[in-house]
Amino acid sequence: MSAKITKTSDLPPSEAKWISFQKIDWVDQAGVARVWEVASRKTRGSSGIDAVAIAAILRSPTAPPSTIIILQFRPPAAGICVELPAGLIDASETPQQAAVRELREETGYEGKVVGMSPTIVSDPGMTTANMQFATVEVEVKEGELPPVQQLDEGEFIVRVVVPIHELYARLVKYSEEGKTVDARLWHWAAGIEFAKSL
Amino acid sequence: MSAKITKTSDLPPSEAKWISFQKIDWVDQAGVARVWEVASRKTRGSSGIDAVAIAAILRSPTAPPSTIIILQFRPPAAGICVELPAGLIDASETPQQAAVRELREETGYEGKVVGMSPTIVSDPGMTTANMQFATVEVEVKEGELPPVQQLDEGEFIVRVVVPIHELYARLVKYSEEGKTVDARLWHWAAGIEFAKSL
Repeated sequence: MSAKITKTSDLPPSEAKWISFQKIDWVDQAGVARVWEVASRKTRGSSGIDAVAIAAILRSPTAPPSTIIILQFRPPAAGICVELPAGLIDASETPQQAAVRELREETGYEGKVVGMSPTIVSDPGMTTANMQFATVEVEVKEGELPPVQQLDEGEFIVRVVVPIHELYARLVKYSEEGKTVDARLWHWAAGIEFAKSL
Repeated sequence: MSAKITKTSDLPPSEAKWISFQKIDWVDQAGVARVWEVASRKTRGSSGIDAVAIAAILRSPTAPPSTIIILQFRPPAAGICVELPAGLIDASETPQQAAVRELREETGYEGKVVGMSPTIVSDPGMTTANMQFATVEVEVKEGELPPVQQLDEGEFIVRVVVPIHELYARLVKYSEEGKTVDARLWHWAAGIEFAKSL
């Protein structure tokens, strides 16, 4: 069956388990007192960072370099989203550990972190959400079968391996089919695509 | 003077002017009833899209292709953020019109929209925020002085023109200086940088 939304209603702060809402009183560069409204995650652990996203680079002797994108139903987008593998960092984890773990769980692939971005912010006009962008290399041996995903109960995630030079066109196609692409994945693919014209 | 935060406190929904909070009741692919918590913008207009971000491509007879990034104090990030020019779409505007207007206001440059992404979502695990990514070409004539920004009262935005092949290194440097880079800008720059290795 397909996932579906049955009802959307107001969320009283006293009921919220995952997110919280603040007003920030601040003084601007001209000395004027202002207020900013913001949403935050309640789950941030000792790393100080909410989440990681993973650009997996699959290298094999015969296929072109590929990456892995995931498709899942996202209630806030009211439909299927296309995203990089990603997830919240557990309380006791480092961002690097979370990147390797989330890639394994969501895609089955074991990789090696070869790059971590600094802490970046997902939507700084509206939320405090922050993350790191991990680049993880995966060596794929000739003739190897794709590994099995290690999903939690209740997780329904489809993984798709895409040659990197086809990524942008694939995202355009998913959009045309009515799926919604995550902005960060879109920007990464748009950067790769744009570089072809440089 | 520098902008600064003076106080952070709970935001009761009755006071919130810009954002709202919902719980979404949904049924997953196994038929299990679940709840998702989400934050939304209250400002979405007739376009159905909250915001645009602009990848400006400055072309001149003599300089390498460049883009424009902006620096501004962002209360949710408690510091200076480095972002693409961007802004909310006005109630009566198309996303294309918003892209040209925001680029003019935040940077002074007049450009022509040469590409618009489909609607993409900024952080679909946490918010309904959506946007389009506009590519806007700007023709810079030899010897022309940089145009004047058209900022609203109370807006303090610094624009920086960066050769595109130096963008990633520049973002690394800003991070090292303690500024916070927007995730979407980071992903775009990381895509351009990664493409150099393909």
